Amino acid sequence: MRMVKTMAMWLVLLLIVSISGPLSADEGMFPISELGKIGLAKRGIELKPEEIFNADGTSLVDGICRVNGCTGSFVSADGLIITNHHCAFDAIQKGSTAQRDLLTDGFIAAKRGDEIRAPNYTVRITESYTDVSSEVLSVAKPEMTFLERTKALDRRRKELELAAEKDNPGMRAEVAEMFVGKTYVLFLYTYLKDVRLVFAPPVSIGAFGGELDNWEWPRHTGDFSLMRAYTAPDGKSAEYAPENIPYRPKRFLKVQSAGIDEGDTVFLLGYPGRTVRNRTASFVRYEQNVRLPTIVELYSWQIQEMERAGAKDRSVAIKHATRSKSLANVEKRSRGQLIGLKKADTEVQRLAREADLQAFINSRSAELGKYKDVLPSIGAVYEEMTIRGPLELHLRELRTAPRLLSFAFTLVDAATERAKPDVEREAPYMDRNLSQTTQQLLLDVGDWHGPTDQRMLSGMLQRLKRIPEHEEIEPLSRVIKSGDSIDGIAATLVSKSRLGDPAFVQECLKRSITELKATDDPALQWMIDLYPHFLKLREKEKEREGKLNQLYGDLIEVQQLRESSGFLPDANGTLRLTVGKVEAYSPVDAIVKTPITTVDGLLEKTTGVDPFITPTPVLKAIQEKRYGPFAHPRLGKVPVAFLYSTDTTGGNSGSPVINARGELIGVNFDRTFEATINDFAWDRRYSRSIGVDIRFVLWIISEVYGAKSLTEEMLR
Amino acid sequence: MRMVKTMAMWLVLLLIVSISGPLSADEGMFPISELGKIGLAKRGIELKPEEIFNADGTSLVDGICRVNGCTGSFVSADGLIITNHHCAFDAIQKGSTAQRDLLTDGFIAAKRGDEIRAPNYTVRITESYTDVSSEVLSVAKPEMTFLERTKALDRRRKELELAAEKDNPGMRAEVAEMFVGKTYVLFLYTYLKDVRLVFAPPVSIGAFGGELDNWEWPRHTGDFSLMRAYTAPDGKSAEYAPENIPYRPKRFLKVQSAGIDEGDTVFLLGYPGRTVRNRTASFVRYEQNVRLPTIVELYSWQIQEMERAGAKDRSVAIKHATRSKSLANVEKRSRGQLIGLKKADTEVQRLAREADLQAFINSRSAELGKYKDVLPSIGAVYEEMTIRGPLELHLRELRTAPRLLSFAFTLVDAATERAKPDVEREAPYMDRNLSQTTQQLLLDVGDWHGPTDQRMLSGMLQRLKRIPEHEEIEPLSRVIKSGDSIDGIAATLVSKSRLGDPAFVQECLKRSITELKATDDPALQWMIDLYPHFLKLREKEKEREGKLNQLYGDLIEVQQLRESSGFLPDANGTLRLTVGKVEAYSPVDAIVKTPITTVDGLLEKTTGVDPFITPTPVLKAIQEKRYGPFAHPRLGKVPVAFLYSTDTTGGNSGSPVINARGELIGVNFDRTFEATINDFAWDRRYSRSIGVDIRFVLWIISEVYGAKSLTEEMLR
Repeated sequence: MRMVKTMAMWLVLLLIVSISGPLSADEGMFPISELGKIGLAKRGIELKPEEIFNADGTSLVDGICRVNGCTGSFVSADGLIITNHHCAFDAIQKGSTAQRDLLTDGFIAAKRGDEIRAPNYTVRITESYTDVSSEVLSVAKPEMTFLERTKALDRRRKELELAAEKDNPGMRAEVAEMFVGKTYVLFLYTYLKDVRLVFAPPVSIGAFGGELDNWEWPRHTGDFSLMRAYTAPDGKSAEYAPENIPYRPKRFLKVQSAGIDEGDTVFLLGYPGRTVRNRTASFVRYEQNVRLPTIVELYSWQIQEMERAGAKDRSVAIKHATRSKSLANVEKRSRGQLIGLKKADTEVQRLAREADLQAFINSRSAELGKYKDVLPSIGAVYEEMTIRGPLELHLRELRTAPRLLSFAFTLVDAATERAKPDVEREAPYMDRNLSQTTQQLLLDVGDWHGPTDQRMLSGMLQRLKRIPEHEEIEPLSRVIKSGDSIDGIAATLVSKSRLGDPAFVQECLKRSITELKATDDPALQWMIDLYPHFLKLREKEKEREGKLNQLYGDLIEVQQLRESSGFLPDANGTLRLTVGKVEAYSPVDAIVKTPITTVDGLLEKTTGVDPFITPTPVLKAIQEKRYGPFAHPRLGKVPVAFLYSTDTTGGNSGSPVINARGELIGVNFDRTFEATINDFAWDRRYSRSIGVDIRFVLWIISEVYGAKSLTEEMLR
Repeated sequence: MRMVKTMAMWLVLLLIVSISGPLSADEGMFPISELGKIGLAKRGIELKPEEIFNADGTSLVDGICRVNGCTGSFVSADGLIITNHHCAFDAIQKGSTAQRDLLTDGFIAAKRGDEIRAPNYTVRITESYTDVSSEVLSVAKPEMTFLERTKALDRRRKELELAAEKDNPGMRAEVAEMFVGKTYVLFLYTYLKDVRLVFAPPVSIGAFGGELDNWEWPRHTGDFSLMRAYTAPDGKSAEYAPENIPYRPKRFLKVQSAGIDEGDTVFLLGYPGRTVRNRTASFVRYEQNVRLPTIVELYSWQIQEMERAGAKDRSVAIKHATRSKSLANVEKRSRGQLIGLKKADTEVQRLAREADLQAFINSRSAELGKYKDVLPSIGAVYEEMTIRGPLELHLRELRTAPRLLSFAFTLVDAATERAKPDVEREAPYMDRNLSQTTQQLLLDVGDWHGPTDQRMLSGMLQRLKRIPEHEEIEPLSRVIKSGDSIDGIAATLVSKSRLGDPAFVQECLKRSITELKATDDPALQWMIDLYPHFLKLREKEKEREGKLNQLYGDLIEVQQLRESSGFLPDANGTLRLTVGKVEAYSPVDAIVKTPITTVDGLLEKTTGVDPFITPTPVLKAIQEKRYGPFAHPRLGKVPVAFLYSTDTTGGNSGSPVINARGELIGVNFDRTFEATINDFAWDRRYSRSIGVDIRFVLWIISEVYGAKSLTEEMLR
C-alpha cells in the first residue's frame, strides 16, 4: 500500500479529546490518519495503529472495501466479500423475475460459475490519502461571486481527481471535503467493476421484521449477503467478463466464530456517508421545520402507492422493491430524527453554544471583528431555504417520483452536459462516470411501471398546485392551472411517452440536445421546457453552497479559537474507524434493551405473517436445536444480532464488526431508533449500532442451507 | 376479632407446596387460614402468622378492607382509607358535573365536613370464617336435577347467611364457594355503608397513560385516592347521615415513607375476585374460541360509541366515563388473555395433564371407575356452551348495552322476584341487598344518554340479526325480521320510552308486575315480552352450574388422588395473601423491564396530549426538584410506580403493598399485559403486579397539592 505522508492542516484541527480527557464517550468517526492519536489501547483495542493502517505494508484496511454506498469486508483470499442483504438488495432484485424470485427464495451459487453478475456494483479499497486543501482553496478569489466560488472549487477538485487518475491508471481518485470550506483530501482507491452475487438468504431472513423492525432493537434479522469481486485475468480492474478471475485482496479478515459477549470491545471500519454535527442551530431549525417533515410526507405517500401497486402483482412488487425499501428507510429515519431532535432539544442546545461563541467574538471585537456576522449570515442562508423549501423540495421530487420525468431529466441533462468540456460537466456526466450513469438509467427504466408512475405524477402535480408560488414556472403553471383534470393530464403524459421503453431510452442517449428537442415524446418535451427552471434551481444551490462553504470555513476558524479541542470532520463517505462496547441501553424509564438476541427470540417473533415469516429449514433447525458449533457459550443458543456503542451512520451498512484482536465477529447493518439522530448528535446513553452475529451468518449458510463450501472458504 | 376455629375440609386439601418443595415460585393467593403453613419467614416476611391474622387479638387484617369490588387499607385511626383512583372513580364521576369536574380537576377535602358522599360505596372488614361445606352440600340429593341442585345449594347458602346476620346484627355474612362443588366457607364482615371521598388527584395523574398504558409496564400512573368510612355516632354501621362520625378501625397500617428497592420482599392482602386455574382444557377452549373474542368485539364497539358521543360534549363524556373505563379495562385484559393463552399454549398443556389423569383413572378402573366420565362430561357442558355461546352472549349484551333495556330488565326482574319469599329470590332482590340494587339502578339512570343508547340498541339488533338462530325468540324475531329499518326501530323505542327519567323509574320500582304490564312504556313492554326468554337463559345457566358443580367436585377428588399437593382454591372475592419480590422481567428476547419508575420517566412520557398530560403543579415540582423527603435514596428522584412478582387478579386493586415488616409502602393497581393470563395460569417469568409507590402518593398530596394535613394524618 502506498501512503502519501503529508502534514495535513486538517490533522492539526484534530485535537482529539482522548489526548487530554477520559475515554468516557465513544463519539467519533475517526479518519484513519488519527489512529495514532486516539489511544487504541486505552479504548481496549489490542492492535497497534500500523496493524490497522500501514503506509509501508499490508494492514487490516486492505481487507475493507466500499461496495457502492455500503461497506464490505474481504473474508477470503479469493475476493469473497461479506456485506448486508440490504446492500446487495438491488443486485438480488435485478436478478429476480416473477419466475425466479431471488428475493423470496434467496440465492446460493453452488459453484463460481453460478455466481450472478451484480450490474452497476463497484468495489473500492482505500489505498492512500493526500491533503490538497491549499491546492483546492487557492482557486477561490475574494472577488468571486458565491456561484463562481463553488464552480471554481468544483472544477479544481475534478482537475485534481483527473490528474491523479492519469498518474495511477485503473485507480479511482476522489477529493473529499473534510471540514466544509476548509480542508480537502484526495483519496486514491483500487476500483473493481466486476462484482457478483454469491449468497443471499431469503428476504424473510435478510429483512426479517421489515419496516416494522427497521431502525429498532431488539432485532432478529439476518441482514447479510456474500458477493465476490473479479478482475481481468491479468489481475487488473475490468468490466464484467466471463473469463475474469476472483480478485486477490492484499489482506482478508479472519472470521472469528467464537464470537463476542456483553462488555466486549468492538470496532468498525467503514465508509459512513454523511453527518451534520458541525452545522448551526439555524440548520437544525430548517431540517426540523421544513426538510424532514416534507420528506416524511412525500416518501410515506410514495411508499403507499408502491405497496398498493405491488400487492396485486408480485412482478410489480419486485420492480418497486429497491426503491420502496430505500424510501422507507429514509422515511422512518427522518421520523426518528424529528422525534429525537425534539426530545434532545438539539436546536436550543446549539443556540446556547452559539450565543456563547457570539459573546466571545463580541468581547474581542478588535481581533475577531471579521467573524462577527458569521453566525447571522449562515442563519440567513437557512432562512431563505426555509422560505423557498416547500417549493424547492417538491420541484426536486417532481423530477424524481414520476420516473418518466426522472428519465427525461437525465436525458436532457446528459445531452446538455456532454456538449461541455469534460472538467466542466456535472460529475455524473464526466467521462469517468458516464457509463455508470447511463447503465443505472437503463436499469431504472427496466423497473418502470406505468400505472404507478401515473399516480406519482398526478400526486406531485396535486401537491405543487397547493404550494404558494414564489416565482412563475411557466411550464408547470400551464399544466396545473389549465383547468384540465390533473389525473387526466398525468394519464395522457404517461400513456403517450415512450420513456418506459429501454430501447427508446438507449436511442435517446445518443442524441444531442437539438435532436432531443425534435423528438415528439411528451415527457421529454415537457422536461425540455422545465429544464431551464431546474438549472436555475441548481445554480441557486451552488450559490448557497459557495456562501456556506466560505462561512463554515470562517466558523471553524473562530470555533477553534474558542474551544481548543474536540473537532472531528463530519462523515463524508471516506474511511473511518469507530470504537465501542457490546452494551445495553435504556430508551425510556424502566426499560433496558440488552445487547444480544438469539434464535429463541426469532421463534418468539415469528407469526408466519409478513414481515415475520421464518423459512421452514430455519424453524426446523431451531426446534431440533441443530446449532452446530455456533451456539453462544453462555446463552446456549445461536445468537442472532447484537448491539454496540459505536458511532455510525448510513454507509456503515455492511461494515465489519471487529473484536479487540482484529477479527471479524459480525456485520453492522443498522442503528436503534433513538440513534437516528446520530447524524445530528451522538449520545453515549442511547446511540447504539446493530450488527448480525457472525455465528448466525455461518449457521444459516452451513447448518441451515448446507452451503458448507462457502463457510469453509470463510473459515480457512 | 372473633375467630371460629373449624377443622375445615378445604384446609386439608391445601397441602401447600412450600411444605415439601423449594420456594422458587410465588404462585398462590393464599387464604388467611393458610398463613401458618406457607413458610412466611422462608418467603422473607418478618411477621409471625398471628401478627397478620390473629383469632384472639388485633392484627394486620383488621387494617384491610374491601371497598366495593376493590381492596383498601386503613391508614389512620380515623377511618382514612387508601385505595386506587380507579376504585373511587365511580364516586368521583358521580360527584362531577360539567361545572364541577372532579375527574379533570381532582378533589381535596379541606376539612372533614367537605368530604363528599360516595353513593353506593360499602366497606367490609373480614372478621371471621367458618367452614360450612357439609351444611351446604347436605341439601344436594342424588335424585335432584341439576337445576334443582343449584337452587337447593343457593337457597341453603342464603339461609346460612341470613341466620349468621341474625346472630350478628349489623354484620354482613357471605358463604363463599372455595373449591367448586366441594368446599364452602361462611365469612363474617363488619359492613360500613357511609363512605366518603377525601382526596382524588386529577384523572390526568390518577389514570395517566389511560387505556394505552393500562395493563402495561413501565407505568407512571398515580392511581390512588383517599376515602373515609363513617359510622353512626354510637360506632355502629349506618347509612350516610351528616352527624355520622369517622369509623375507628381496630388497627390501621403504618405508612412507611422510606419505601423499597429492587429485590425487596413484599406481600399483599386483598380480595382477588376470580381466577379459573382449576378449570379444564375444554373450558379454556370455550374461553379462547367463543367468550373472549365475543367480549372483545362487543366491548370495543361500545367503547368507540361512547368515545364518539363524549368527544363532542364533556357532560356526556362524564356520564359515560365509569362504564367506558370499565369496559375498556375488560376489553384490553381479554385481548391480553387471548394472546397469552395462545402463546403459553394453555389448552394443550391442560389437555396433556388431563390425558395423564384419564390414563390414571382408566388404569384403576375398579377403584376409580366412577370418575371415568368426569372429564368428558365437563367437556360436554362447554361444548354445548360453545354452540350456544354466540347467541347467549349477545342476548345478555342486549339487556346490558342499551341501558333502557337494562333498566327495564331490572324493573321487571325486581317486581317478579319481590313477589317471592326472601330466601327464594335472586340475590340482588333479597331484602338485605335490595336498597343497594335500587340505588345503583337510579345512579345508572342518572348517567343515561339517549343518543348513545339508540346506537347501542341498534348495534345489538344488527348483531343479533346476523347470528344463526338456535331457537325462536318471538319478541326478538318480530323486531329484527319486521322489514322495518333497525335504526328506525331503535330510534322510536328510545325516544318513546321514559326509562331515562329517574322519577319515572323510581315510580316503576314501586309497581307490581301486573302494574308494570299495564304501563305503556315501549321499552318496558318489550322487556316484559322478552323476560320469559331471559328466565329460560337463567335456568339454563343454573342447570349448567349444577352439573359443573357436581362434576368439578368429583374432579378435585380424583385429582387429589393423583397429585397429592399444590391445590389452592381459585380466587373468589375472599381475603388472600400473596408474597413476591420487587423484580424485573423480560417480556421478549433482549428486553428487560426494570421494576421502578421515577418522575423523570413521567416527564419523558408527558406530551401534553391526552392521556399523557401532566398537571402544571406536578411539572413544576419535578423541574424544580422539589422532592421533599420523598426521593428514592438510590435513584435521587421521586419514584412513581413499581413492579413485583405477587399473584394477583381483579379485586386486588387498591391492595396495600406491604414490606417484610408489615408496613404499607405502596398501593397495588394493575398487572402487566403478559400477566393478564394470571386468571388462567401464573408464571414466575412474566406474572408481575404493579403498584404506585407510597412516596409518590405522599409527594403528590403534600408537596404538589399542599394537603399536608392529610399526609400528617397518614404518617402520624
